[in-house]
Amino acid sequence: MQENYSIGIVAPQTAHFDTPLTLKCGRVLPQFDLVFETYGTLNASKSNAVLICHALSGNHHVAGKYSENDKYPGWWDNLIGPGKPLDTNKFFVIGLNNLGGCHGSSGPKSINPDTNKPWGADFPIVTVEDWVNSQALLLDALGIKKLAAVVGGSLGGMQALEWTIAYPDRVDHALVIASAPNLTAQNMAFNEVARQAIITDPEFHEGNYYEHQVVPRRGLRIARMLGHITYLSDDVMGEKFGRKLRDQINYSFDVEFEMESYLRYQGDKFAGEFDANTYIRMTRALDYYDPALQHGGDLTQALSGTKAQFLVLSFTSDWRFSPARSREIVKALLDNERTVSYAEITAAHGHDAFLMPDKHYHAILRSYISNIDIGDNHAK
Amino acid sequence: MQENYSIGIVAPQTAHFDTPLTLKCGRVLPQFDLVFETYGTLNASKSNAVLICHALSGNHHVAGKYSENDKYPGWWDNLIGPGKPLDTNKFFVIGLNNLGGCHGSSGPKSINPDTNKPWGADFPIVTVEDWVNSQALLLDALGIKKLAAVVGGSLGGMQALEWTIAYPDRVDHALVIASAPNLTAQNMAFNEVARQAIITDPEFHEGNYYEHQVVPRRGLRIARMLGHITYLSDDVMGEKFGRKLRDQINYSFDVEFEMESYLRYQGDKFAGEFDANTYIRMTRALDYYDPALQHGGDLTQALSGTKAQFLVLSFTSDWRFSPARSREIVKALLDNERTVSYAEITAAHGHDAFLMPDKHYHAILRSYISNIDIGDNHAK
Repeated sequence: MQENYSIGIVAPQTAHFDTPLTLKCGRVLPQFDLVFETYGTLNASKSNAVLICHALSGNHHVAGKYSENDKYPGWWDNLIGPGKPLDTNKFFVIGLNNLGGCHGSSGPKSINPDTNKPWGADFPIVTVEDWVNSQALLLDALGIKKLAAVVGGSLGGMQALEWTIAYPDRVDHALVIASAPNLTAQNMAFNEVARQAIITDPEFHEGNYYEHQVVPRRGLRIARMLGHITYLSDDVMGEKFGRKLRDQINYSFDVEFEMESYLRYQGDKFAGEFDANTYIRMTRALDYYDPALQHGGDLTQALSGTKAQFLVLSFTSDWRFSPARSREIVKALLDNERTVSYAEITAAHGHDAFLMPDKHYHAILRSYISNIDIGDNHAK
Repeated sequence: MQENYSIGIVAPQTAHFDTPLTLKCGRVLPQFDLVFETYGTLNASKSNAVLICHALSGNHHVAGKYSENDKYPGWWDNLIGPGKPLDTNKFFVIGLNNLGGCHGSSGPKSINPDTNKPWGADFPIVTVEDWVNSQALLLDALGIKKLAAVVGGSLGGMQALEWTIAYPDRVDHALVIASAPNLTAQNMAFNEVARQAIITDPEFHEGNYYEHQVVPRRGLRIARMLGHITYLSDDVMGEKFGRKLRDQINYSFDVEFEMESYLRYQGDKFAGEFDANTYIRMTRALDYYDPALQHGGDLTQALSGTKAQFLVLSFTSDWRFSPARSREIVKALLDNERTVSYAEITAAHGHDAFLMPDKHYHAILRSYISNIDIGDNHAK
């Protein structure tokens, strides 16, 4: 509730790109838009830029509000603002919506200029590598040669890691939070169930539901309910809901337990807001990301060309992106004699912890970020 | 492949009950059928009966084959037969399909004698307590006053536990395997997602799909895929499938990884065999079971009237019914000064381990079961 420290009212911008972008799948996007927001001021030497990469269901609205009456600020507002751990008095922060998204950047529900209809199923499958390439083009457009830092949690952490591989000379620091060098089979299995729920929804229409004026709401709802189970730890679910009954037992399939009410609410809310074609693409990008694959599974080799300094963070109760996976990244970086700071943060909230203003977590971020050298003096 | 030790060809029987059964939900089942199988011979004093209680998707076909050409034997054939850990040379083993099931016992797809149509949505919600009461009626019909043992894994273990609470004088030994005194919030959450996938399938028709000549196959498929993730440990999924690609990466939503192929196969197979109304009832029975609830959450109090001796088993990699949950049962029994043997078995296979012929696991079962006193000599 530190209103004084909020970045305040913000507004999105759109960058249009006419340069064709060749994607990892082999297809070419002839032109595309990226919607983004910025917080703070780019300094004269353009050395204070920090890129925030979003996760599965995130977007460009990272901090601030769109109006005084906005109920909620951006999704990482607790981190970013004047005086916050990622201090906008010092840094120029950029948030964008990734390609394939549903919040303004080119994606399945955007109009395909070739057909004047929504792309739908025909929008390409995009990857972490494609996102990073498109983010680099956005930096070019903003005249930023090098990032002071790239920051991301979960799927966003994979993008931060990929930045250091694909553009080693364009990033000073990478903050890879609650992430992994690839998904485990179990993680991919959860993604597959979520996708199958969407794809087999009769209203999915093979991805071309826009023209039928419907959305595969049932499938997206199931996908999100499932997601929520995996974002929370077993312990937090136990503490938050346990076996709490809503009322007396009614012996029915309606809501009996508080937890059911929570899951249905989250599922319904998401199904009314998010685009199913985007959801299945985001999960596919998670599945595919595996920088070690082209190095015979050798992550050390995959990270051998990196030049950035790293902060890697994980959370003890995160069973979706467990600390062991972060340690793999740390180990591979150490094998390459890179500068790495690593912390395994004791937190009860599971994977969701990376979005929460845990004191210890934010203290580490504040400490690390405040030491990032942007090479010139900056006004408080 | 110890064909010599198989119980051989078996056949199911049906018991019809005309005595009305009052269910926990308050409704009365005026009449019902239970389909069951038996293996071995009931001795003269009827002291050698062992009841096997099935889990979520199990049934009465526990051991043996229906014909020489049968591809697979009953679901716990590795445990039961002449010379096997549960030796049919000594014991008379009974397997049944629970009320609400879809393999011959009265359930949603059975004909409601009042309407001459399938029960469908109108079949009552049944509970673990109802199952145990109906199982007691089956024992009455077979003239069995007391069980030498009741054995169950997972949801079956809850029934074994309930036997010792509801009929303390009718059970000598209870083998409670990979089970829990109630579900955790996370477990209930998985059940809720599975049910919602089924219930929101447009072909569910509020449970009355039989009259529409359809089945909610999509929902049941999703439910089963999700189930399979939770039956396996993360490690086993990693070993069994890892990130193995089926072929080269095709950048599509078709099967890319071996694990996806496995899940789809399991989902499709189950959706073609099992009844959705039964599935949602079985998960609800899991949710509701909580013998401590009427004792203010005090499990020790709930088990204070038990008289059986117990074998409680858990598996280290079982994250759905973790060893910690079995230990709660053991602790409550010890508080009551009951005779309990407990083993936490090191096994990689997660919850599925209880169905597998792990050497150490079967050695414990063989040892415990062979010591069960049936009070008379028996021929080898």
